[in-house]
Amino acid sequence: MLSKNKIKLIHTLERKKERDELGVFLVEGRKMVEEALGSGFEIDLLACTEEFAFNHPQLPDKTKELVVADAESIRKASLQKNPQNVLAIVRQPKARPTLFPESELVLALDFIQDPGNLGTIMRIADWFGIQTIVCSSNTVDVYNPKVIQATMGAIFRVQTHYTDLPEYLKKLDPQIPVYGAFLDGENIYAKDLSPRGVLVMGNEGNGISEEVERLVTCKISIPSFSSGKGSESLNVAVATAICCSEFKRKSY
Amino acid sequence: MLSKNKIKLIHTLERKKERDELGVFLVEGRKMVEEALGSGFEIDLLACTEEFAFNHPQLPDKTKELVVADAESIRKASLQKNPQNVLAIVRQPKARPTLFPESELVLALDFIQDPGNLGTIMRIADWFGIQTIVCSSNTVDVYNPKVIQATMGAIFRVQTHYTDLPEYLKKLDPQIPVYGAFLDGENIYAKDLSPRGVLVMGNEGNGISEEVERLVTCKISIPSFSSGKGSESLNVAVATAICCSEFKRKSY
Repeated sequence: MLSKNKIKLIHTLERKKERDELGVFLVEGRKMVEEALGSGFEIDLLACTEEFAFNHPQLPDKTKELVVADAESIRKASLQKNPQNVLAIVRQPKARPTLFPESELVLALDFIQDPGNLGTIMRIADWFGIQTIVCSSNTVDVYNPKVIQATMGAIFRVQTHYTDLPEYLKKLDPQIPVYGAFLDGENIYAKDLSPRGVLVMGNEGNGISEEVERLVTCKISIPSFSSGKGSESLNVAVATAICCSEFKRKSY
Repeated sequence: MLSKNKIKLIHTLERKKERDELGVFLVEGRKMVEEALGSGFEIDLLACTEEFAFNHPQLPDKTKELVVADAESIRKASLQKNPQNVLAIVRQPKARPTLFPESELVLALDFIQDPGNLGTIMRIADWFGIQTIVCSSNTVDVYNPKVIQATMGAIFRVQTHYTDLPEYLKKLDPQIPVYGAFLDGENIYAKDLSPRGVLVMGNEGNGISEEVERLVTCKISIPSFSSGKGSESLNVAVATAICCSEFKRKSY
């Protein structure tokens, strides 16, 4: 059974302050917990139904504490709208120094606010083999439960670094191009794109901030093919996907 | 003021049965209502605060009924989590015959279940100048309020047709290629893509159904660039965006 105290503890993980104090985050559902188990991340607590435990016989070796509980008490602990029969408290990996691109593309996010967007962007990065995402300090927390669930496991493979984004860009080797996605940039299809560089994506409503814009060395755009009045913009995760696809296609 | 009966009526529009019986759908928020006003769609009822009415002086000419109400009663009527100060009941356009591609790309959706995905796909289609989406009969209803809000206005520009998708594909001119997005298709980057054709995107969990798969003449894939174990798939809206981008880039 999951004790009241454990359920209370799990509920506090909805808040960044508590997650950071404890150095952990919450993952939920079969798919995400299986990804966690296969990831090498440390697991402090795994709570699941008897059926899940039966189907995963090596569980006791992979988690500090294993609680087999009824579906109802896992439902009570869950932060999701549609709880599943398993959840786990996973340790946040130790902070590593923020990475500069060696030979690869690094994604930089300037004030992404929506958790679903950040999670989807991490999933896209994972698909396109982008291993590093640099987030401005005001970007939504990567350990927010909604971000975690939207990553579909990419949280265990893609590294995120939170930092002062303008300072990060200022410290880059001046040889490294800083691309930024704008509505009025150069046509991304016609543009040579370097396999080594930084690609900045901006806020959902306001795009890239002025301070970061001044540090962008190449403005790019996804052209619209709409005749007449069409959509004014693409969702930021969708735009990230198209840009990453173009970068990777050209270095194929 | 919004009468209790009007609020009740608006609440019934959450359900497909009532929307179809009345032949209407609900749009909410400044951006969406302004798109409706500029679209030529008929508006049965527009309810807004005094401030909105003041800023839109031509409102009485553009709606059959205008109700200026307090924010609280609009909040009560709203189907959204974060209600804004305006909503409108808009007439569904008359059903038109399902279109076959003349010289353009038509998007076909096989059992898209998530309203956010359908709305995002319509926004992507709008951006890329795709005017027709053919939906399998089991695809989520386009007039679902969550779909409407996710389209960001594309609902007023992109035509959707619900039909038996295998029957539609069987009736196509055999000259017209039917592309389908699969995990094991040909590399989309390396493939010649016809500007005239149908592009089928499949269900979130199960992909394209077997019956539709048999009617696909060219399987395509977005290659993964992940080394080792990466994400197993992309979100369907993200995959649609990348595919549409490739089709349009190649006919640029």
